[in-house]
Amino acid sequence: MTHYYLYHAEDLRKYMTEVLYKSGYTLEDSQIAADVLLSADLRGVESHGIIRLFPYYSYRLRKGIINPRPNLRILTETPASLALDADNGLGHPTAYRAMKMCIEKARQSGVAMATVRNSNHYGIAGYYAMMALENDMIGISYTNSRPHQVATYGRIPVLGTNPIAVAVPAQNQRPYVLDMATSIVPVGKITVYERAGKEIPLGWGTDSTGTPTTDPGKVFPGGGALMPLGGTDIMRGYKGYGLALMVDIFAGVLAGSSFGLNVDPEKPEGSKIGHFFAAMRIDAFRPVEEFKRDMDTLISQIKESPKALGKDRIYIHGEKEFEAAEDHLQHGVPLMSEVVESLKQDGRELGVEFNLQPVGEKEVSELYSD
Amino acid sequence: MTHYYLYHAEDLRKYMTEVLYKSGYTLEDSQIAADVLLSADLRGVESHGIIRLFPYYSYRLRKGIINPRPNLRILTETPASLALDADNGLGHPTAYRAMKMCIEKARQSGVAMATVRNSNHYGIAGYYAMMALENDMIGISYTNSRPHQVATYGRIPVLGTNPIAVAVPAQNQRPYVLDMATSIVPVGKITVYERAGKEIPLGWGTDSTGTPTTDPGKVFPGGGALMPLGGTDIMRGYKGYGLALMVDIFAGVLAGSSFGLNVDPEKPEGSKIGHFFAAMRIDAFRPVEEFKRDMDTLISQIKESPKALGKDRIYIHGEKEFEAAEDHLQHGVPLMSEVVESLKQDGRELGVEFNLQPVGEKEVSELYSD
Repeated sequence: MTHYYLYHAEDLRKYMTEVLYKSGYTLEDSQIAADVLLSADLRGVESHGIIRLFPYYSYRLRKGIINPRPNLRILTETPASLALDADNGLGHPTAYRAMKMCIEKARQSGVAMATVRNSNHYGIAGYYAMMALENDMIGISYTNSRPHQVATYGRIPVLGTNPIAVAVPAQNQRPYVLDMATSIVPVGKITVYERAGKEIPLGWGTDSTGTPTTDPGKVFPGGGALMPLGGTDIMRGYKGYGLALMVDIFAGVLAGSSFGLNVDPEKPEGSKIGHFFAAMRIDAFRPVEEFKRDMDTLISQIKESPKALGKDRIYIHGEKEFEAAEDHLQHGVPLMSEVVESLKQDGRELGVEFNLQPVGEKEVSELYSD
Repeated sequence: MTHYYLYHAEDLRKYMTEVLYKSGYTLEDSQIAADVLLSADLRGVESHGIIRLFPYYSYRLRKGIINPRPNLRILTETPASLALDADNGLGHPTAYRAMKMCIEKARQSGVAMATVRNSNHYGIAGYYAMMALENDMIGISYTNSRPHQVATYGRIPVLGTNPIAVAVPAQNQRPYVLDMATSIVPVGKITVYERAGKEIPLGWGTDSTGTPTTDPGKVFPGGGALMPLGGTDIMRGYKGYGLALMVDIFAGVLAGSSFGLNVDPEKPEGSKIGHFFAAMRIDAFRPVEEFKRDMDTLISQIKESPKALGKDRIYIHGEKEFEAAEDHLQHGVPLMSEVVESLKQDGRELGVEFNLQPVGEKEVSELYSD
């Protein structure tokens, strides 16, 4: 069982902004990054929230790995495309501004795409895709990341967990928000099983010979790797591998950033990862009202279709996360007690004490989300 | 074992063109469709090649389900987008022309996207994505199709096998060509196992209660359904389900075509399926030479990385198909003897005799591609 403290979302936002600002980012950049991190914790994606505040964003800035005053500049543009250089700035404000520009281009030209090179970890991919929603647009967001996945028939990690995010508005139904790693599970899920002494399903990861294993310790730290969506060969893992490779092509190669084995966030000059964004005006294709009405129909058709034996609900992508956010806004955002301890220690060192008052606590099984 | 006859590619092209023309399509439409069908057989995707010539394209035209003289028209356009109505024409020439227009738009605006409504089955999705390659562009092609896949936790098929195709040029390496159904396997693969009396891997399909089964007969014709890429819940089948849904949103809802449960190719008024295309000029983002050099590097990094125990080669997407096409151009295109029998019978009925001389024959295990 894992123990959680619950905190007011706005308290966390204020704290994260202060930490980032005190670390050396501009106030505006700190506010944007805090909003993205909070959004992850609100939506239940705790692996991408406040847990990364100090180790990723504060520490790397102070170590000189991330540029606190980047000059985000346009390398080349057409009526419907933009190629940007992030100048090794923090990923969140970079991605936020890139998607803003992409949306403006789409407003003019119907659709638009943007690449970003020389950036850093940008948090949850879905945040930027969702920026399109309020503009009656479809949004897309990819990023590459350090190698953790094997190629099908490969032995060493050559591709990151390279996520794909797509957000589409509906009328009365909640938006469709796909936000998925192209590996089956993240690294953290393997280590949770390893700590719990539990076997992993065959296909989640390989051992150091590239062979699928049920022993999580043989994956990490045993020199193995994650397997792509699909998993083993007979389950068509090469499709997940193909999607991970596509993300590296769009966010890495097309952006002119690092890709494949070259992605290394520990490099002193920064990780140089890349992002890819797209925005599509719905009314460039058909009237928005018609589109949203049909989205509602499609979503209802699926949700109201007969359920599998023993199941009582079919979910649309993003639905669980919207419900989590509503719950967390009302009852507090859960942070693991270990995370709270780290925040207290790291905060003290930086001179920004984490002394927020929890609004409650709860116990949750670590494996509950499987 | 399955017996195959081998035929000259150009003989097959000529025959297919004649059948389509004699069935009532224009000569130009017949030529385009024959090229797409031949491309499938050449690339080893025999499920989408000549096997569909009579039952799909000839029969449906003669039955009045497909319009032989469609007026493909633009519904709405912006500098970077196009929405088209196929007027219930044959899918291949429709998709070919839509992608052509999309490529022209991208030439002007950097990137472009096109939707098509009221179309019919267009063959292999990859064909249209690959049209971008010779223009130094990246190409994307999606289509929706009749429901065969369950949603995660669902009992009945609500989504088609909805393929995703992406084609990207390289320099000395072959292009990256992903062309994948979002289900793990197609319907035909289940029936091959059923005929062979062999169990399917758990996760390929569900029985009529929505429960994953290893009995192929419980899937088809047992009232079950295909499962999305990933398969079962613990293997993150909801990601494949999310990709299948994304394709239905782009090719169905955004196009203003049929979607979800409404897709029914047997309807007398046609299947009204939809397509989605995108074309991206590489030099809208960075110089083409730099991009292609980096594509070669990424592909080499992966292909030359250490192999899993017992494996001697890592493939890039499209590579096996390019090699198959080279082999088939040189040694002949393999057609199952049953398919040849059908062609002879259907050809006689239409008055276009299939009397091509095979250039060879071979025996292959039906399960060889697993």
